[in-house]
Amino acid sequence: MLPQRFAKSFWHGWAWMEKRSTIKDVADLAGVSPSTVSVVLNGVDGARVAEDTRRRVTEAAERLGYEAHPLARGLRTRRSQTIGFVSDLVASTPYAGQMIQGAQDAAWRAGMLLLMVNTGRNLDLERHAIRTLLQRQVDGIIYASMFHSITRVPRLSPARPLVLLNGIPAAGMLPNVVPDEIAGGAAATTELLESGHRRIAYVAEWRDIPAVELRLRGYREALERHGAHFDPALVLREEPGAAGGYRGVSSLLDLPEPPTAVFCFTDSMAMGAYRAAAERGVRIPDDFSVVGFDDHPLIASSLAPGLTTVGLPHYEMGEWAVETLLELAEGTTAMTGRPLQMLMPCPLVRRDSVGPPSR
Amino acid sequence: MLPQRFAKSFWHGWAWMEKRSTIKDVADLAGVSPSTVSVVLNGVDGARVAEDTRRRVTEAAERLGYEAHPLARGLRTRRSQTIGFVSDLVASTPYAGQMIQGAQDAAWRAGMLLLMVNTGRNLDLERHAIRTLLQRQVDGIIYASMFHSITRVPRLSPARPLVLLNGIPAAGMLPNVVPDEIAGGAAATTELLESGHRRIAYVAEWRDIPAVELRLRGYREALERHGAHFDPALVLREEPGAAGGYRGVSSLLDLPEPPTAVFCFTDSMAMGAYRAAAERGVRIPDDFSVVGFDDHPLIASSLAPGLTTVGLPHYEMGEWAVETLLELAEGTTAMTGRPLQMLMPCPLVRRDSVGPPSR
Repeated sequence: MLPQRFAKSFWHGWAWMEKRSTIKDVADLAGVSPSTVSVVLNGVDGARVAEDTRRRVTEAAERLGYEAHPLARGLRTRRSQTIGFVSDLVASTPYAGQMIQGAQDAAWRAGMLLLMVNTGRNLDLERHAIRTLLQRQVDGIIYASMFHSITRVPRLSPARPLVLLNGIPAAGMLPNVVPDEIAGGAAATTELLESGHRRIAYVAEWRDIPAVELRLRGYREALERHGAHFDPALVLREEPGAAGGYRGVSSLLDLPEPPTAVFCFTDSMAMGAYRAAAERGVRIPDDFSVVGFDDHPLIASSLAPGLTTVGLPHYEMGEWAVETLLELAEGTTAMTGRPLQMLMPCPLVRRDSVGPPSR
Repeated sequence: MLPQRFAKSFWHGWAWMEKRSTIKDVADLAGVSPSTVSVVLNGVDGARVAEDTRRRVTEAAERLGYEAHPLARGLRTRRSQTIGFVSDLVASTPYAGQMIQGAQDAAWRAGMLLLMVNTGRNLDLERHAIRTLLQRQVDGIIYASMFHSITRVPRLSPARPLVLLNGIPAAGMLPNVVPDEIAGGAAATTELLESGHRRIAYVAEWRDIPAVELRLRGYREALERHGAHFDPALVLREEPGAAGGYRGVSSLLDLPEPPTAVFCFTDSMAMGAYRAAAERGVRIPDDFSVVGFDDHPLIASSLAPGLTTVGLPHYEMGEWAVETLLELAEGTTAMTGRPLQMLMPCPLVRRDSVGPPSR
């Protein structure tokens, strides 16, 4: 997984930090001039060096654990073995961190490092971050959003690729990956329909974010496919989180003819749904079924009964973004036929919150 | 907040990306040679330039939105206006992300950018990351852990400062900041003692991590200060998370003489405590009081009743780490008397899970 070039010098441990070999050391050992060493190791385009000389220089450099100064090399070759990762709040909030893990893992498989900046939505800082990363010759930039967003991207030098992670471009075309929210919403609803439910509510956030609308579309499509009636009174918009889920599901359960199941926009809202049910002596899943969205590690399996939910494929999205960026940097996407827009499937995760309707 | 030098060029928007002014443009406008421009803008040590010339160059550069190539400048000045932030899993897990926000905010106040690498505990990647960041001339490195850890740090070039964030060094001395776990454990226990409880349990994780022992010490100290008996039978070690809290508190509530209150090692464990209580018809806080630890945004205020808990000062720890690093880089810690080890206070956050004992 680790390219030879890195691995070699690590075998020498941290010695290189104490005393680094110089280009002169390598030249002496290989019996060539320092400028020949520079030409070979920095891969200067078009320079002609005999294969035998090239081999001697490479071997001498490896033996001495020598590496050309990467800042200097960056200036010449315009390659840095790094990818910039600019995010709004991905690293600082407890929602989509697995995008970072997926991206770093994919980068590392290619011997590359993810250099991240978390801007906290400070636009001055964001511009400065992108600029700094470009100046440091990152091979491209991944622009990541905490939640599925419509993204306005600062204009970039066209020579370096940019991939949107968890965002779709507000204008124009950019390679991007987002969760397949429609299919996810349909999967959640279908799980309830196939358990026999017909009066299924959808409780979402009141924020106008793409996922709310798209999951609603999936919900409606699933109802239609199963010949179930769409009742607008069963679609509620509430504040985000457990408090909103509690309020929404409380009001639904207090209807003269309450729904027998609810699809909650997030696991956090589902947590509130559990509380609303418990307060009324309504048992899950015996009397009422609940499906969430997120498969959040701190919530879904911590609830009792365990919450059936739809996972957000953050890890896979992070991987996809890096793999796509690397192909774009190499210019091979046309050859491989890689799609440049990706709706990542959201897997249904079955636990114990769905059962047949009691009425 | 933003240093003039950055702010100026932002006022010109993104124009610099299309067509950047050259050093020649600046030299022409200022009426000096390009090498004088270079000396002034790169702040070469010991170079003597008349104040008037210096001013003309600076003004010309500002007017043209010119900046010396930062890679080239990095080579000369060994300063990069960046801080390296190497973490195990801080950015990818839903626990301590606010350390990143605090660190980035403090860095930005000094006009600096945090360049982060999240290693996922891959040690090869970690070594490569530290090496890459040092080669790119970061002014220092913050080495951050997801939870309060005893940290083995790779050896670093002594010229660049390193600060441990959420870790204490396994050997030797390094500037570091960790939560004041003992005082936090004492605060949680004191809150229960002052509500009248005497039989108070402590349910912790079974992992051997510093926080488990240190909060236990705070718990014992608080009991002692209030003349309450320490009963080892009321200290349990369980698996992490809601499942462990559920098991631990279930067994406590089933004792012939159960405790009247519990201090849970995490909010997640407290979530399990709520479930154990609910299943037995034990009401919180009427029949049983609960205090957590974390003040986790997805849990503490989502539980019903809201969970009284002890906050982890992640944001403040991140700020402290950067401020200390910058003082170390400037060499001013001796002058300011800044302490180089910090136990950050953990605030008690009162909600509704603590009341007087019913028995």
